[in-house]
Parts: sequence; C-alpha cells; structure tokens
Amino acid sequence: MFFWHSEALLTYEVSNMNRRPSIQNVKVKDPFWSERQQLITRVVIPYQEKILNDQVEGAEKSHAFANFRIAAGQEKGAFYGMVFQDSDVAKWLEGVAYSLANEPDPMLEQRADAVIELIGKAQQEDGYLDTYFILKEPERKWTDLQECHELYCAGHMMEAAAAYYEATGKDKLLRIMQRTADCINRTIGPEDGKIHGVPGHEEIELGLLRMYGINHIEPNLSLASYFINERGKDPEWFSKEKESRGYTHWPDTGSHDVRDYHQIFAPIREQKEARGHAVRAMYFYTAAAELAQLSNDQTLAKACERLWENVTQRQMYITGGIGQVAAWEGFSHDYDLPNDTVYAETCASIGLIFFADRMLGLCADRKYAEVMERALYNGVLSGMNLDGQGFFYVNPLECNPDVSGILPGYKHILPRRPKWFACACCPPNLVRLIESIGTYAWHEADNTIYSHLFIGGDASFENAVLSVTSEMPWTGKVTYRVEESRRPTFTLALRLPSYAQNLSVRVFSGDTENDGLKEGKIIAGYLYLDKNWKAGDTVEMTFDMPVQKVYANPLVRADAGCVAFQRGPIVYCFEGIDQQVSQQSPLQTMRVLKDAAANVEIITDGLLQGMYAIKVEGCRMVCSTDDLYQTVRPDKQKMILTGIPYFAWSNRGTTQMRVWLPEIE
Amino acid sequence: MFFWHSEALLTYEVSNMNRRPSIQNVKVKDPFWSERQQLITRVVIPYQEKILNDQVEGAEKSHAFANFRIAAGQEKGAFYGMVFQDSDVAKWLEGVAYSLANEPDPMLEQRADAVIELIGKAQQEDGYLDTYFILKEPERKWTDLQECHELYCAGHMMEAAAAYYEATGKDKLLRIMQRTADCINRTIGPEDGKIHGVPGHEEIELGLLRMYGINHIEPNLSLASYFINERGKDPEWFSKEKESRGYTHWPDTGSHDVRDYHQIFAPIREQKEARGHAVRAMYFYTAAAELAQLSNDQTLAKACERLWENVTQRQMYITGGIGQVAAWEGFSHDYDLPNDTVYAETCASIGLIFFADRMLGLCADRKYAEVMERALYNGVLSGMNLDGQGFFYVNPLECNPDVSGILPGYKHILPRRPKWFACACCPPNLVRLIESIGTYAWHEADNTIYSHLFIGGDASFENAVLSVTSEMPWTGKVTYRVEESRRPTFTLALRLPSYAQNLSVRVFSGDTENDGLKEGKIIAGYLYLDKNWKAGDTVEMTFDMPVQKVYANPLVRADAGCVAFQRGPIVYCFEGIDQQVSQQSPLQTMRVLKDAAANVEIITDGLLQGMYAIKVEGCRMVCSTDDLYQTVRPDKQKMILTGIPYFAWSNRGTTQMRVWLPEIE
Repeated sequence: MFFWHSEALLTYEVSNMNRRPSIQNVKVKDPFWSERQQLITRVVIPYQEKILNDQVEGAEKSHAFANFRIAAGQEKGAFYGMVFQDSDVAKWLEGVAYSLANEPDPMLEQRADAVIELIGKAQQEDGYLDTYFILKEPERKWTDLQECHELYCAGHMMEAAAAYYEATGKDKLLRIMQRTADCINRTIGPEDGKIHGVPGHEEIELGLLRMYGINHIEPNLSLASYFINERGKDPEWFSKEKESRGYTHWPDTGSHDVRDYHQIFAPIREQKEARGHAVRAMYFYTAAAELAQLSNDQTLAKACERLWENVTQRQMYITGGIGQVAAWEGFSHDYDLPNDTVYAETCASIGLIFFADRMLGLCADRKYAEVMERALYNGVLSGMNLDGQGFFYVNPLECNPDVSGILPGYKHILPRRPKWFACACCPPNLVRLIESIGTYAWHEADNTIYSHLFIGGDASFENAVLSVTSEMPWTGKVTYRVEESRRPTFTLALRLPSYAQNLSVRVFSGDTENDGLKEGKIIAGYLYLDKNWKAGDTVEMTFDMPVQKVYANPLVRADAGCVAFQRGPIVYCFEGIDQQVSQQSPLQTMRVLKDAAANVEIITDGLLQGMYAIKVEGCRMVCSTDDLYQTVRPDKQKMILTGIPYFAWSNRGTTQMRVWLPEIE
Repeated sequence: MFFWHSEALLTYEVSNMNRRPSIQNVKVKDPFWSERQQLITRVVIPYQEKILNDQVEGAEKSHAFANFRIAAGQEKGAFYGMVFQDSDVAKWLEGVAYSLANEPDPMLEQRADAVIELIGKAQQEDGYLDTYFILKEPERKWTDLQECHELYCAGHMMEAAAAYYEATGKDKLLRIMQRTADCINRTIGPEDGKIHGVPGHEEIELGLLRMYGINHIEPNLSLASYFINERGKDPEWFSKEKESRGYTHWPDTGSHDVRDYHQIFAPIREQKEARGHAVRAMYFYTAAAELAQLSNDQTLAKACERLWENVTQRQMYITGGIGQVAAWEGFSHDYDLPNDTVYAETCASIGLIFFADRMLGLCADRKYAEVMERALYNGVLSGMNLDGQGFFYVNPLECNPDVSGILPGYKHILPRRPKWFACACCPPNLVRLIESIGTYAWHEADNTIYSHLFIGGDASFENAVLSVTSEMPWTGKVTYRVEESRRPTFTLALRLPSYAQNLSVRVFSGDTENDGLKEGKIIAGYLYLDKNWKAGDTVEMTFDMPVQKVYANPLVRADAGCVAFQRGPIVYCFEGIDQQVSQQSPLQTMRVLKDAAANVEIITDGLLQGMYAIKVEGCRMVCSTDDLYQTVRPDKQKMILTGIPYFAWSNRGTTQMRVWLPEIE
C-alpha cells in the first residue's frame, strides 16, 4: 500500500485501513449536524417510506415496494416506474441503516428487515435481481448496459447491504447481494463467453468495492477493477451495443455525445478532463480512487488526481457545485461556469464528497478535505429545505424568479424546492450522506487518526477512542479529547483549515498544557501530533474566521468583476428579501464597494435564527431617467448588503438570489 | 389625417403623403451605402437567383421556381420545400425590383418578367396562389391560417408586386396579386360565411396596405384593417382552428404560448408589451401604425406608441437587435437582455426599421428615426458579411467560440456567418431593405420634407428635388442642396442627431449665407427650416461625433457594471483578434478603465480599411496563481483596447467578441 503526495514529496506506506470508520464507530453529537440528522430521521426517511409505499396523496406514484412484491409473487400487477426504480428502495435502505445506527428504532428496523426479506424473495434463482427486467422485459436482461441501470440498481443495493450489515450486524441483504454479484460476475467480464461491457451509469463499482471491504471476496474486487479499467478502452462500445440490440430504452434527444456522457471517451488513465454526466463521473472517479488505493496502482492514482484537479480547479462552483450544463446534467469545459443556468445537481456535489474521501485515502492533503467541506456546507446542504420538506436537484448561484423556472435555458432553475421528484435521486442521496456524515470526518491509517471535518461527537478507532466538541461552522473552536488510548503511541493529524486566522492548537496532557506545535509537524495542511496519548488528554484548536472576499480566476466569464463572500466553510449569498429590493432596485442594481467592510451578525430570530449573517458595505446603482441606454453613468447610493449562508437560501419565500455581486470602487 | 406628438403637444394636420418616397424618386449616391447596394446587386441577388433555380452545388435544394413551374403545368413533379417556400420568390422579386430601379439590367428584368409570367400561370382561376396547397394539399386550403403561411406568402408577393410596379411601371404582378387579394377577401372577413380568422405570421396586412397605396382599391384597406383589429379579439382562435381541423402542420415543441407567439393574447389596443415572435410582432405593429395613419385612428396610434416604447425602452439591445429568446425567436420581458444567448434576428431588426418608418409617419419624433438608424447600422448590417457571401440570422452581443454554436442554449449563436439557410428569410430581407434604403431616409408631408437618415443621393418630392452629400457614418457632415423648387415655400425638416456635438446648420441662399437656426424651430429633435427655397440653396449640417460611453439601465442584469461604446450611429464591439488575446488573457479578463480616454483611428489597411476603429484605455486582470478561486484581488495590467464597428464583426476569422465590457476604476 502506498501513500502518495505530489507536493510534499513524501511517500508513506499506509495500510488498507486508511479509510473512513464504520457508521457504528462514530456518533455525531454536534449542534449543527445532530439537528439535521434528526430532521432526516424524523421527517425525511418516514416521508420517503410513504412515497415508496404509494401512501402520499398527490405525489407521483412510486410503486417501488410494489414492484418487489409483484416480483416476489406476493402481489399481482405489472412493473411501474423508471427503469431504475429499484434504486429508490436501495437508497432508502442505506439511509435507514445509518439512521438506525444513529438512533435505534426497532419498528423501523423490523420494516426494513421485511423489505430485505421481500428483496430476497424477488431475487431469481441465479441471483439476478432487477424488478424492471424480471417483470417487464425478461428477454432483454443485460442487453442494454448503457441505458437500463441493472448494474446501477445492483450497486446501490450492494451499498445498502454493506451499510445495513455495518449498522445492524444483519447480513441477509449482504448475502442476497453477493449472489447478485456472483450472477453479474458470471455474465460480464473479460473471459470468453461473457459480455465485455461496462455500465452506462457507474455505481456497481462502488457497490462491489463496498462489499469487498466487508466480505473480502476477491471476485468483487476484480470485477470492480474490470469495470473501471475496461471503461473507455473501446469508446464506441455503447454504440456497438445499441446496434447489436436494435432498440433504445430512452428516446434519443441528441443532446450529448454518448462517449463523453458516459465517460467512455478514453481509458481513465488518458482522460485529461471531466466530461459528461457529473454524477456518473463522480461515482466513476470515486471508485477508481478507491481501487487505486486497494491495488496500489500509481498510474490510476495519478489519473484520479488529474481529474480531481480538472474538476475542482477548472469546473467547480464556489459552492462545491459541479455540472454546468443542464442538457446532460454535467460538465462543460474549463472556466465555463455560468451562475444562472448552472445544473450543480445535489447528487453531483455528494459524489464530489465521495471522491474527496477516496482521494484523502490516497493522500492526506488538506485540499481534498476542503473541497469536501465546501461541497458539504454549501452545494449539498442547499439541496434541502431547512424543514426537510423540500429538495433541490439544481443549485444555482443566481436565481431571478422572472426568468428562472420559466424561460428556455432557465426552466430547470427552480426558485423554490419542490416536495419530491418522480426521479427521486437527490433526496435519498442527501439522506444517506447526512446520516453518515460523521464517518466522513475521519480516516485512520496504521497509527494515525486523521481529522478532516470538524464535527462534534464520539469516534472509536483501532488506536483510540476520541470525543470531539465543535462550534463549527460558526465559531472556530474544536476540542479533541482522548477517551481511551488503545496503542502506546499514535498520531493525531488535524486539518488546519486554510480559512483560519490566528490559529492556535494547545495540547493538554491531563491538566498540564504542552505547546502542541512544538511536538507537531505540518504536512499538506495537517498538523501531525505524535504523542504517548493518555485518556483525558485534550487538544484544543481555536481560530478566527474573518469574512473573506473571494475572486474567481479572471478566465471565468460569469464572475468577471464580481466578488463572493465566505466565512470559514460557509459561502454566502444575497437574497432579495434582505436588501429592501423593489421593482426599481432589484439585486442586479447592487454592488459591493471595493474596500467594503464586511462584518458578521448572528441572526436572532426567524427561520435562520442562530446562523451568522454578513453585513457588507455596498451601494445600489440608480439613474435619473428610465431610458434603457444612457450616456450618463448611473449614480451610487450607499447601502448595507446582507448576506446569508448559501445553504439557507429559498427558505423564506420566492426572491432573487446571487452569490456573486459586482464590485465597484 | 392627423399628426400626433405626445411630448411637444403639437397636433399637425398632415396628409396621407407623410410617407416614404417611391424607389423611383430616390437615388442613393453615398460612399457607404452605394458600395453595399452594388454588392447586393452583383453578388447577393444573382446568388439568390441561382439558389431559387437549384443551381448552387452543395446548397440545400430550394425548388422555389420549380414549384411555380409545376403549378403552372410547365413541368412534372411534386412540391418541395417549406410551406412558405413561395415567399422566397416574392422576396427575390421585391429585391430585384429595387435593384432594377437602382441599376437597370435588361437581362435581369427579362428574367423577372418571365417569373411573373410563370406566377400568373400558376395562379388558379379564382385568384388563389400558393404552390404548396395547389400541389400538395389542395383540400386543406385556408384550414390552417396559424401555421401554413398562405397569407404570409400572399403578403410578400403583394409587396413584390407593388415594388415591381414602382420600379418598372409594369403592373402584371400587381394585377395578379389583386386577384389573390380579391380571392382572400371572398374567403376571410367579418361577413357571415367567411372565415373569421387572422394569419399566424403577420405580413398580409403590409402587402394589402402596400397595394392600396398604389391602386387605392378600398377592400385592400378594409381587409388589412380587419386582420389588424380582429387579432386578439379571441385569444383562443388558433386553438379552436387547430381543434376544428384536427391536424397540425408542424410538430408541437411546446416551447411557447401560442397566444403570445402570434400576438393574439389581446386586441392590439390592450397589448401593453411586446410578446412572442419578434418578426411577426414587428410586421404586425408596422401595419397597425400604417393603418392608424391611413384611418386617422388615435387609439390605434396610441397602442402602437405603447408597444414602441416597450420594445425600444425595455427589450431592445443597444445594437437595435430585438428578440431575446431563441426558442421562439422572440421577446422575453422587460430588461431581460442576455448578450450571449440572444436571438436578435436580422429580420426582426429590419422589421423594427419598418415599424420606425410608420411611427415617423404618425409623428416626426427623432426617437423613431434614431432607433431606425441604430438598427440599420448595427443589428441589420451585422447580418451580412462584408463580402456579401455570408449571413447571420442571429446577431449576438457576445460570442465565445468555446461555447457559442456548441453548448445547449448557445447553439444558435454562430461565430461565423453561414453562406445560406434552408429557411432563407434574413438574406432576402436584407436585400430588399438595403436596395431600398434611400427611401427610408425621407418622408414628405404636405409642404414638409423630412430628412430622417443621412444618406447621400438625389431625392425627388412634390415640393422639391434635393441632392445630398453625406460623410456619415464616419464624419458629421451632411449637405442638402435644392436642385429644383416645386412650391413657392416649403419646409425642410432635418433630424438633429442626439449624438451630435458642436452641431451647426448653415443655410446658403445662392451664395449668401443665412444663419439657419435663426429662421428655424426645433420640435422633437427636428429642425424645421421654412423658406422660400430656390434651386441652388444649400443647407450644411456639421457636427462632431465623440466616442460615447453608454450605460445600460441598472435593471438590465446582463450589462451590470459594464459599458459599451458608440460613435454617432455606430455601436462598437471588441474582438479577440484585436486585443492580443491568448489562452491566459481572453476577452473576459479585460476591463475598461472608468475614466478612460477613447479615441478614434481610421483603419488604413485590411478588410476593414476606411472604417473608424476606437482605442480605449483599459486593462487586463491577471492573477499570480491559477487557482479557480482566491482571496487576492486580481491585478490590473494596463492595455489599449481596440473596438471596431459592431456590424463588421466576424469578418476576420473566428474570435471572441463582446459589445459590453466591465468598467473598473
């Protein structure tokens, strides 16, 4: 196993263990995150269960549980729903697993067990499991890997199986899905007589690797490896598959290049930039980075790093949103980052978090953790209403209710979060991420425990049991306490956030304070504290988070002349509702003064209570006539602009919103 | 007849004569325009003729002449082409008419005569004339006024007939088209037993009024009036028509509201803003304004004025381009003026010129003439390559070849002018406008001759014969000479351009100079010179045209913080090719300095020789890292920006282009 770092030129030998802890080993106790986990446990998961059971009046019929009941022979009827309808059940189960680990609920567990029972009955003799094909087109199994999501659904169910096992210790679903994995392994692969193909929507790779991480069954690893390495060897494979089967599942809109859309335009080691559908790309890169670690594959790791740099340094919004083009829900090209026609799907930012987690597995560089944190607190959290009852697929950085959601090119930019979607990918993805968010805060590798995110709670490792209290994201104070030391010495590696100022780390051994920095070294943004840690030792990290003005690279057309604001991990936005907008002074008339002071102010009432707003000196531009064009420069009227955390936008009615505002002297 | 002016509160009684002169009475002799007319006569019209004859290899088959030959029984075959294919022949004939007036060509006239002969033979017994329905769907005549362009084609052929009569004195086509008008009159109208309908694409109104202007046959006027006043009385009329016929000609893309698209959402007197397809709207408003004048209809005139204000003060680009939305080639709403996804069809700007001409017929207010001039020198001229061999439908104000023409939402934004189009509306519309441009320079009303545009040449009126020399658009010098005075006294009303500085008007009677301003009065931007004019009298108008910085109303999102440049009627743009752009310093990195000096410089070589460029102090923004986001404000590197006339963009290769640039201190 290797540990690779390009900048510091250090090479560690790290073990396979350099990964997130299991859900059972992390308990979130955090003023910011616990509240959100509870919301999901109490509001979102039950709602989702009702949806899957077709018990929500007025909502589009899901039929997802029914499909399984029919396939299991327990009910008469026909398949209904999307070709990937089964994945809704898988994602629900994965979310339930984490939820049960966070907050036991015997009744819910019983219902989940029953669903798993049902899945087992729906599974066919040979391990095949996809209710669409079982019920609707049995003769077409495995004929349309490009469009038909058999492997995608299987991958999600494998992730659910692993999660459910980790959360409850029950392995029934894991065994069911291993049979499906075996079925796939008999059907697809490099050997003669098998289909030499790859999935249209990457996900099976993640599922197989996840199961391998638990059951260590080698064919799971080698099949994942096959899917990852085979991809792009023949960029025309999907076209050939389509020709040979002679039908298509979806109407061809001609909106995209199939090779780019599915990331098969080249083998991954030759891919220089992120292309196509953003979620697919993220799942693919994530699996590739995990495989690189598992198989100690340096060329694959370098390919992942190249794609990482392209995504995060050329095609990512400041919110951690990715995917600029709605037509294919995916990438455009370097520096093309329009704010008001963006896609930035919630799922894509979640995928970016997965990718960051695996890159951290390869190399503990702060840059990965900080993109993870950026996506999490901004582009991901914005996907859900504060009350858990509405969800965005698309997370724009500018919304103008006069055109957004209305005009061509802006129809996907909704000013308010709808309750649910027929294609229900983002809400359950949010569920599984937030319920398991504690596991993303940590990695452990041999005798090092890495702290990537500042989330309060307890975490149990091979080396130690730690507890953390955190006042993030609002205040820069995080305290780590060793509750139990399990090794004579180990290293605690703490991310030093790049946005921190006046950062101080103090180590207390029992009651005695040591200067932590004396005994630490800093590599790639992490402070490595080696010590003979004892129970009761604490590390206190404090730092200031001044409001930062952020500028986009001047190559970004959409942000030319503009500035955005950030404080710690929180990106701010300006909503019309806070700026005394009127028909004559909408957001587009407002500017930030170049040398503006920007202060924070705790919101003391209303829906956003407890959050930190920012107050920025700005002005509105006014002109004396209402001529459309004039030779007199508009006048400046000073005003104070109020920014709120981006993730909280669109919770107080329909209003304009912008992240980037023009700066003026 | 009335003459109405809201601002000056003057009411003139003007005659029906307050209209453009006939093509035979105006001869353009102008360094700027004569060259363009010759280009059209020598390059575009012959090319167009070849296209119509299917003689251009590689070009999409037109079949337009062939359709007439088949309908005339001279050839076997089937109809081929769009449902409005006949209109290509009509537009060609109209262009030929003006061209023959400008530059006689007996061979061309002979061929045009033969085409007219053919049209006569294709016409049916009852006057019906539309080869699509004659050949392809005779049973469906008049069943689809919304989609099928029968009235549109007839309208264009009526305009051609009038033009051909004016240019050549030959009335054969006029008589043919009067039979068609009679046929329509028997079929559609308010009387019982007739179809109570309106056309989907307005144009017949203009054709009927144009014929009425020549033959004074009253039913032409009353049918035009019916179409204009009936429109919008029943906003559901097209839906009802569709339901009753039970078929559609075009697939329904669902992209637009039928009522808005066709301007039938309300009667014109209740329409508060321009909606739908921009060309249709322009033709409609133009006809309405003409009718208001002809019928002395104040409420209709006020409706036109309201729509004019909405179009030009809320929805018009600085180039005179209109139509912000590609999906329906039309209007969006107030202040929504995106530069890089704009439609701004050449034909729509041409339509805006028609509308302006008719508004000037109602009221000699400079604002109409200046929009006409703005559209003409910018949004219209940009529709054609400098060599006459390429044409734009879409005239963007920003073009980025990395996305324009490529990405969804930008596909219609072509960085280069294609040679021809299957739907060939813009090139022939340019032909007919530019060949007849001299007629738009003038109006005559009773004893007043209005000079709206500064175009050199001779013009013959009821009151006088004038000759004009003009150095516009590059130099502010225009000289009017009375060649022959036909009335004891008359008034010469000269537009005083709002962009002029240090304007001086000097009147010379014979050899003696009078101070023109002493004897003139200024109303709504026109200087009225009453005088006992004699042959040899001259008026010399001189003025400076400094480069002007123009700001958009702050309500325009797309232009926030930006500035554009104009000199006289010419709007400038910045092309990458002139700014030493590189991959690291494309146009988006460039800014105009707030107090920038802007100078003109005559281009002395290359394709743009003789045009005036502008040189503006600016800077490019550079940053020390290539991070996508950074907390350090990018640095300014001073540079000189070079602007060229917008109409000349995209003649020197594929390159970035912007009209609006951010301004910085």
